[in-house]
Amino acid sequence: MNDSYLNFVNSPFGARLARSLGLPKPEVLHRYRADRPEFDGLVAIGAGREPHLLEALANLVTSIGVTSVAHESAGLWVPLANRHGLMTGRFEAAESGSHGKLTALLFDASGIEDSSQLEPLHGFFHDTLRSLGKCGRIIVLGRPPEACASPRQWTAQRALEGLTRSLGKEARRGITANLVYVEHGAENGIEATLRFFLSARSAYVSGQVVRIGVRAGADALSAFDWNQPLAGRRAVVTGAARGIGASIASVLAAEGAHVIGIDIPSARDALDSTMRQLNGTALAFDIAAPEASAQIAAALDEQGVDIVVHNAGITKDKTIAKMTDAAWQSVIDINLSAQERIDDALLAAGILRDGGRIIGVSSISGIAGNLGQTNYATSKAGVIGRVQSMAPHLRARGITINAVAPGFIETQMTAKIPLTIREAGRRMNSMSQGGQPVDVAQTIAWLAHPGSAGVSGQIVRVCGQSLIGA
Amino acid sequence: MNDSYLNFVNSPFGARLARSLGLPKPEVLHRYRADRPEFDGLVAIGAGREPHLLEALANLVTSIGVTSVAHESAGLWVPLANRHGLMTGRFEAAESGSHGKLTALLFDASGIEDSSQLEPLHGFFHDTLRSLGKCGRIIVLGRPPEACASPRQWTAQRALEGLTRSLGKEARRGITANLVYVEHGAENGIEATLRFFLSARSAYVSGQVVRIGVRAGADALSAFDWNQPLAGRRAVVTGAARGIGASIASVLAAEGAHVIGIDIPSARDALDSTMRQLNGTALAFDIAAPEASAQIAAALDEQGVDIVVHNAGITKDKTIAKMTDAAWQSVIDINLSAQERIDDALLAAGILRDGGRIIGVSSISGIAGNLGQTNYATSKAGVIGRVQSMAPHLRARGITINAVAPGFIETQMTAKIPLTIREAGRRMNSMSQGGQPVDVAQTIAWLAHPGSAGVSGQIVRVCGQSLIGA
Repeated sequence: MNDSYLNFVNSPFGARLARSLGLPKPEVLHRYRADRPEFDGLVAIGAGREPHLLEALANLVTSIGVTSVAHESAGLWVPLANRHGLMTGRFEAAESGSHGKLTALLFDASGIEDSSQLEPLHGFFHDTLRSLGKCGRIIVLGRPPEACASPRQWTAQRALEGLTRSLGKEARRGITANLVYVEHGAENGIEATLRFFLSARSAYVSGQVVRIGVRAGADALSAFDWNQPLAGRRAVVTGAARGIGASIASVLAAEGAHVIGIDIPSARDALDSTMRQLNGTALAFDIAAPEASAQIAAALDEQGVDIVVHNAGITKDKTIAKMTDAAWQSVIDINLSAQERIDDALLAAGILRDGGRIIGVSSISGIAGNLGQTNYATSKAGVIGRVQSMAPHLRARGITINAVAPGFIETQMTAKIPLTIREAGRRMNSMSQGGQPVDVAQTIAWLAHPGSAGVSGQIVRVCGQSLIGA
Repeated sequence: MNDSYLNFVNSPFGARLARSLGLPKPEVLHRYRADRPEFDGLVAIGAGREPHLLEALANLVTSIGVTSVAHESAGLWVPLANRHGLMTGRFEAAESGSHGKLTALLFDASGIEDSSQLEPLHGFFHDTLRSLGKCGRIIVLGRPPEACASPRQWTAQRALEGLTRSLGKEARRGITANLVYVEHGAENGIEATLRFFLSARSAYVSGQVVRIGVRAGADALSAFDWNQPLAGRRAVVTGAARGIGASIASVLAAEGAHVIGIDIPSARDALDSTMRQLNGTALAFDIAAPEASAQIAAALDEQGVDIVVHNAGITKDKTIAKMTDAAWQSVIDINLSAQERIDDALLAAGILRDGGRIIGVSSISGIAGNLGQTNYATSKAGVIGRVQSMAPHLRARGITINAVAPGFIETQMTAKIPLTIREAGRRMNSMSQGGQPVDVAQTIAWLAHPGSAGVSGQIVRVCGQSLIGA
């Protein structure tokens, strides 16, 4: 729960000592606080040839109320910003020595159609990266490669991944770098996602690639308030009594949702206490029980539900030669099969309403595999399959399904890992530290957001751009 | 070029010292040698419910001439093997204490349709893994998730990835673990791929997922000899003068191909010497020159070509703030745009014959990004896009396009990396060592194989299951 090294090297004495010894100094990440402005500072805009997203970016900049400066690659920005009545200026290369003036770098690469047109990306980040402050944000915007008309365009757009991930590894200082592919026609659906990636809510999300598609069904977003986007919505969270589940419940409640927390009967007291603080509803069910999905459906039937977060999960680690059949079966069942049973029950009865959200919790182990976790990694890889397979099925009903894949998160579970392994897990990422439960919870809240209707079938890692992958 | 730690800990004194100090002892990997049998030993067969691939596996076992034993999960194997006239027996759990009797573990998971049916995988690997010898092989066979009829089946098949990657991390001792998804109807196209993954040719390929699809065009494979599969075929290799390129040329020539090596004029002497040893043809061209693609096409026009390997590549590492425009441009151009120009020239003129093979070289940096390599990672991510975008276009002509993505390979280039970084790169994989150029070359030879007609659009890492990924 506590990274004492991070605290130490950010104390006055510790910082001096770390500097003199050449030790790594992980940045204290800025995280969302309701009492601080969510957006501020100066955003630099860059662009490749014929950018398609500047209008949408101008709307975003207007909505969140930041000041922008145009890099020379984005000559179209100044007149556009003027038309939107925005304060804007030009980014002067001479300023590039003055570190820390910018809070975000946004590059619109959507018009790049050939590998020979990638040069403006170099120009922009070459000129601006040193001016980006601590915990700054890098967002590259492109078109989904697989939807591109020509192989040349697909290739150039796919190349953006290598750039963005490299920038995340170079930038350090708590800076995140993410790539957002915007489908043709989805330009007006980018705001919720860009707000997430620009804000402190995405503190531990870096090196990710997210696709925004055209929303199924209605043209207009259902109305919502950016300050309470989940107001009037009902959210089920499994495993909500403690830890990451309680954090998810808390963040969804803060965004306005009524939370129905589910946990096993033995955790009833903790669940009741967590739900009482959030004005939520506690339901004690063991999701491993065959009858649980029907019971959960019955309990939710009358009022329905808008958001389902499958957070409940267990580990029973052993190498496979020493793993009992029961340890294998229970991990697969609780982490994967129970999600399938619950979703099927809620979907068949229409309890999960149209326009709803399903969010699973996968894991870096499900992506990369892990020693001693054949059961856990199999179940968490299955969660990825679940998301990818269900997304097209649910599209007609406007329901999205996605998963988060946490890396090293500081919890009671990870606190039990032996120190040297824990330290390796903590430091082997671009943030040089573990994440907090709230980082997972905020990512889930973005996926649950009514403005995220175009985000479905995706796996988003919350791992600080962990080195570990597949 | 030389891993002195690996050599030391595998010497009699070094092994004793490593054992007493608890140091890691990377296994000396078995690699292909023409003077040794490619396949031998005892293969254990396991299966989930209603396996679809046992017939194809029986054909394979017959073809390569190994002895098999059936795990209790694969009760159908014994009568099937008997019908094929194979020596076979039953795997006795009592033997599981006697380490090292098995050379491969093959599990047919193709009939698994639901997460509740995954248990036989645990049973099989629980019982057999300890009996698998050094440099043994684990192959899990399934169905491509995205082609599954139901979300439940897709989910269960996708879960196999988490298992296979975990097994690779647990097994150690030079053992590889890979997952092969066989499309419905492609059952008869598995032999070349399974031969590769079973043999010493795939020594450094682990943790990979490969899909075998139905071959486009002709139903029958064009005839070939398993001992000289590339006989009569012409293969172009760029960057062939030295290093990995020379190794690729050498392996393709050993498989029977006539190799046309291309390299820059300044490397002409080395290129001539390499090609002379292989009875190949040397072509000195600078692929960065705008006219090079037309010149290469003209040089190859008369006799045509069957295999194109885009191996030429350069690095010009700097953080982006210090990277010159020229360093950015030349890396993108040589590593990516030149491949596009050459392919387009060869394809437009029909010089690359129907049924041909294009093989690109990507990199772990292209997958995960890398500090100081924004240019290189962008170009190598673009190679992935190139493969994915061109595969469907080339299908009608029976041409496949794939890429290898090397991890840490022992070359003159990596020998220049500072020792501590080099050691980290070498050890952070399931083999605890770097790969050899021949590991990349053998993987390319498998993709170039006439029996690999169903393998296209794929990226195969040659990285010893590196921890590093995205």
